[in-house]
Amino acid sequence: MTFEKIPYKIYLAEEEMPKTWYNVRADMKTKPAPLVNPGTGTPMGFEDLRGVFCDELIRQELDNDTREIPIPQEIRDFYKMYRPSPLVRAYCLEEKLQTPAKIYYKFEGNNTSGSHKLNSAIAQAYYAKLQGLTGVTTETGAGQWGTALSMACAYLGLDCKVYMVKVSYEQKPFRREVMRTYGASVTPSPSMETEIGRKILQEHPGTTGSLGCAISEAVEAAVSHPGYRYVLGSVLNQVLLHQSVIGLETKAALDKYGVTPDIIIGCAGGGSNLGGLIAPFMGEKLRGERDYRIIAVEPASCPSFTRGKFAYDFCDTGMVCPLAKMYTLGSGFIPSANHAGGLRYHGMSPVLSQLYHDGLMEAVSVEQTRVFEAAEQFARVEGILPAPESSHAIRVAMDEALKCKETGEEKTIVFGLTGTGYFDMVAYEKFHNGEMTDYIPTDEELQQSFDKLPRIPGLE
Amino acid sequence: MTFEKIPYKIYLAEEEMPKTWYNVRADMKTKPAPLVNPGTGTPMGFEDLRGVFCDELIRQELDNDTREIPIPQEIRDFYKMYRPSPLVRAYCLEEKLQTPAKIYYKFEGNNTSGSHKLNSAIAQAYYAKLQGLTGVTTETGAGQWGTALSMACAYLGLDCKVYMVKVSYEQKPFRREVMRTYGASVTPSPSMETEIGRKILQEHPGTTGSLGCAISEAVEAAVSHPGYRYVLGSVLNQVLLHQSVIGLETKAALDKYGVTPDIIIGCAGGGSNLGGLIAPFMGEKLRGERDYRIIAVEPASCPSFTRGKFAYDFCDTGMVCPLAKMYTLGSGFIPSANHAGGLRYHGMSPVLSQLYHDGLMEAVSVEQTRVFEAAEQFARVEGILPAPESSHAIRVAMDEALKCKETGEEKTIVFGLTGTGYFDMVAYEKFHNGEMTDYIPTDEELQQSFDKLPRIPGLE
Repeated sequence: MTFEKIPYKIYLAEEEMPKTWYNVRADMKTKPAPLVNPGTGTPMGFEDLRGVFCDELIRQELDNDTREIPIPQEIRDFYKMYRPSPLVRAYCLEEKLQTPAKIYYKFEGNNTSGSHKLNSAIAQAYYAKLQGLTGVTTETGAGQWGTALSMACAYLGLDCKVYMVKVSYEQKPFRREVMRTYGASVTPSPSMETEIGRKILQEHPGTTGSLGCAISEAVEAAVSHPGYRYVLGSVLNQVLLHQSVIGLETKAALDKYGVTPDIIIGCAGGGSNLGGLIAPFMGEKLRGERDYRIIAVEPASCPSFTRGKFAYDFCDTGMVCPLAKMYTLGSGFIPSANHAGGLRYHGMSPVLSQLYHDGLMEAVSVEQTRVFEAAEQFARVEGILPAPESSHAIRVAMDEALKCKETGEEKTIVFGLTGTGYFDMVAYEKFHNGEMTDYIPTDEELQQSFDKLPRIPGLE
Repeated sequence: MTFEKIPYKIYLAEEEMPKTWYNVRADMKTKPAPLVNPGTGTPMGFEDLRGVFCDELIRQELDNDTREIPIPQEIRDFYKMYRPSPLVRAYCLEEKLQTPAKIYYKFEGNNTSGSHKLNSAIAQAYYAKLQGLTGVTTETGAGQWGTALSMACAYLGLDCKVYMVKVSYEQKPFRREVMRTYGASVTPSPSMETEIGRKILQEHPGTTGSLGCAISEAVEAAVSHPGYRYVLGSVLNQVLLHQSVIGLETKAALDKYGVTPDIIIGCAGGGSNLGGLIAPFMGEKLRGERDYRIIAVEPASCPSFTRGKFAYDFCDTGMVCPLAKMYTLGSGFIPSANHAGGLRYHGMSPVLSQLYHDGLMEAVSVEQTRVFEAAEQFARVEGILPAPESSHAIRVAMDEALKCKETGEEKTIVFGLTGTGYFDMVAYEKFHNGEMTDYIPTDEELQQSFDKLPRIPGLE
């Protein structure tokens, strides 16, 4: 193996780390559609959202104009504990694939929460603390977001109440214990603690819960406890804003070595990682300064971009949250039980949805067996055990690199490696034992779900 | 919080990474005692060890004279995939403790094996490959070493056969699946695959296995399969040599900022991490250039340094391996079942044993509940979820920092944070639920074990 002068891993120095987040909405000609009150069909403003979200976060949510938003010093100090994350040149993967492509990945898994979620968790916890609140509530499915938020709250001395989907609570006791290590209270959802929880348990005794139900409980708990607010780990504009630190670091690291990517690839569930990774590159594209191919990768079993509708829909299955205009499979859509890993959200970030709708990015969907094949190949040569979510991006990065092998093109590919798979070994085991299968929803199934999309006058 | 100019994390640049390992034996006035044939009582030489170990590794094992041993380029390239590991300034922990002490830790957990073990695994796999071997065998208990070796073998295309203590195989299925992801074959031990395994199963049907038994099976498998050799993750001189990369990086990072530690602290089971961390500092001490306090931390339930005998003993409980002169609790000693985490080896690296015997380092033992208290406090402020093993060092680093608080001394403390605790959540859960207890072996128990130490003529 011979190596160019670009190191295996590019780490920015502390003084090179971003001091501001980048708000891609400022450069969008068509802004993302506003959140809307399902009862009235009118856009929700600052006052409408204050009962649920922290003040400063609402301002960030609604701000479509400010391009650079300063990262408060306290958050920058916290970032220094686990950031900059390395931008890795995948020399070993390139050699394994025998491709002329140059592959880089931004690895966000080197913190205890195991994923990029911490970038927004600390920001949201910080603003809650700043506002003098006592604590925050949230939901978690697989547990990455809940873990990240627990870490952030422990650091700031803030209460953290996590509603964890019951089936995950029982099947992933380790995740639960990590959150407890950080002092969070973790409640299996649905629970008897909330009105909506009791109602659901009465109607569906023995239910193992869903993310939608956990969201509803977390929102209710926030609204009904003075000094608490609700926080969310993806989808929202504010989350993409905080996650822009991923893309800003990536771009700074590439710029340092004079590297310009041709293709940027990220996995997409609610869109927090992808939105963050592509932010500054998309900015250049929107301003007409440079062009990039930007590819969102989603599971074939939950294909909101590639097979969803661009429409107003509920953010939760319990239909208590505002409506957002996004690519959606319908708020009642739940991916097949054979789907492993995250990326199971029925909708997609309104910002990314608008960008996709405007033809500024592409999307592909991939089946999970092909994803785990890529994950295993990647682990064996690059050493890192990737999360199933992240492995969607690995799959497509490898596919693009193999195309380069055929054409002989020396493209530069950058992808986001959002996290590690330590808590996903049950899925890996299925894969090793040949027991993993693929499921792609039929057009009929999707149509049934689309039929239930809300019809709000004036919002067709 | 205000911060000095020393960054949160010091990363060396690629060109600053060590190009040679440092062999502390070259600077020892009293060399570690040689491995001895239990039958004859004579030191084992190159030819005696060839059936079990790779040639180059035997040379390293026996070499007490060469101070600097070049790290082959291929190993340096692999190191670049996950090294340099960060040297972290524990600003948040210092503030939490309100101590004037300056605390640094070298974090070795940022690779998929989750620990420092990879530093030696890749070296041992490399030399096996270089010799044209087909594969290697080893044993693993909790699984860190087995995982590390699997990763290294996957990278080099070498077969990897791991005998995993049966109780761990069953209780830690995730660890097993990580190894399988890297293509290793993992066999619960004792197994029907080896003579010794069959013998043990016949004598003790239903046994859940032990590390000693797994070692015996792995050695037998290596010896009886052409093209295979046995490799080991700790205790041996060669392992400490490879692990010196930890200390060399630590020293280079400190030197870069003009920092000189007063106290260096590491946890000690077989001694691989501690021996590696302290190597260059001990070298200065041995050469009379500078003085440091060096502290080994061991579990109160397995106190080889603090309560063991300095004597020749078997390296395995099956008594098939050579004898080593070391601090030992007796090869039949097994820590109480309530002991969580690793550091359960009955003996200690012969190099470290000699250094301790010569008064060049100190040792303390700590009870596990105090260890987990420290682990949780550390996680909450520093973000990283530490392995129980590593948390022994955290405990004593915190204790030393609290002493500084009392005296007002601004000591500089460096400790080794060997790995992450993602696979140890069962122990954390016990701790959270108040179910964790401490067990300290009685003098009588230890004496019974000492009574069984081998008596080889001429080796008293």
